[in-house]
Amino acid sequence: MSDLTLYHCPGTRSTGTLWLLEEMGAEYTLETINVRAGRTAEFLKINPSGKVPAIRHKGQTLGELSAISLYLCDVFPEAGLAPALDDPKRAQHYFWHVYRPGVMEPAMISKGQGWKAEPGMIGWGELDDVVKRVDETLTQNDYLLGDSFSASDICAGGAVSWMVAFGMIEPTPAIKAYLERLQSRKAYRRMLEIDAELAPKA
Amino acid sequence: MSDLTLYHCPGTRSTGTLWLLEEMGAEYTLETINVRAGRTAEFLKINPSGKVPAIRHKGQTLGELSAISLYLCDVFPEAGLAPALDDPKRAQHYFWHVYRPGVMEPAMISKGQGWKAEPGMIGWGELDDVVKRVDETLTQNDYLLGDSFSASDICAGGAVSWMVAFGMIEPTPAIKAYLERLQSRKAYRRMLEIDAELAPKA
Repeated sequence: MSDLTLYHCPGTRSTGTLWLLEEMGAEYTLETINVRAGRTAEFLKINPSGKVPAIRHKGQTLGELSAISLYLCDVFPEAGLAPALDDPKRAQHYFWHVYRPGVMEPAMISKGQGWKAEPGMIGWGELDDVVKRVDETLTQNDYLLGDSFSASDICAGGAVSWMVAFGMIEPTPAIKAYLERLQSRKAYRRMLEIDAELAPKA
Repeated sequence: MSDLTLYHCPGTRSTGTLWLLEEMGAEYTLETINVRAGRTAEFLKINPSGKVPAIRHKGQTLGELSAISLYLCDVFPEAGLAPALDDPKRAQHYFWHVYRPGVMEPAMISKGQGWKAEPGMIGWGELDDVVKRVDETLTQNDYLLGDSFSASDICAGGAVSWMVAFGMIEPTPAIKAYLERLQSRKAYRRMLEIDAELAPKA
């Protein structure tokens, strides 16, 4: 058993962490949690929010996709998926990891549910603004942080991939080409294979 | 002029960054942006989301409260407001910085707006779960990361402070005592003073 465990449910947000770990070539134990069947007392001890992804590393548990990604990038710096502390790109590494849960997800859910609120009050905004922001970034560079693939592409790029898959946004040419780059990655395909194998059991 | 500028609007989320900079004893230039008057083309160049807080540091701009906090903690490590990369507490530092925008804010807005969604679909949850999580943490320790005050207390603790001020949650005894600890800090009071001085001009 590895000192790193991923609590995962196929077809959910935790595919993002699975993809990240495959990109990192990390050794980990995979525990399948069927979150759709409801919260179990046992899993609530791992993650009081009852959600996946969650990880256990060196006896410590951690929830929230973005927090897990930021943490694992520090634990496995040799994977080269995050800019170093003194790299100016570190700012954008944080930006995209916060933008995914704080802006992309609520904007996506709000649109799907038809929720409207005063723009000044909410901390997110319209989904169109998200698409514009991502498109502008990818018109300048192949990846969110520039020329190279990074954990930001898994975290925020993964959300873009979901939005397109669910028909919530119309991909611009730059976004379409970007998603093809992401989805042709070996670790992405490995994630899909693992997920497909687990799905019938979860 | 300092190489660090904070774009701030009194009485908004950017008070969190103002408080952080005061805690850090950082040298910064304060630019007041009246976000309530609408987005100006000039400010959209600083932050395409049109929101505060935003910062400019060494020629680079950055938005999102949590991303700014994580970034500034790396820029000013001597302020001691974040655990070092190899400190096990670094995981919780990331957790609270993601929990604030990804869970606390949407849970707070959803409750205020009376929005309901299937729990499995949304990435956040009920505001009661947020209060329970914060209360359990503060029942064990004086601050979110343990015995010492950190940037997590400004970021996530600041949201708790807002929720109580707006009557959205009923503070537990542990939360009440925690907010008193936060609000008695010199830098917190300095933030309020700066804000009060700026408010009539914004």
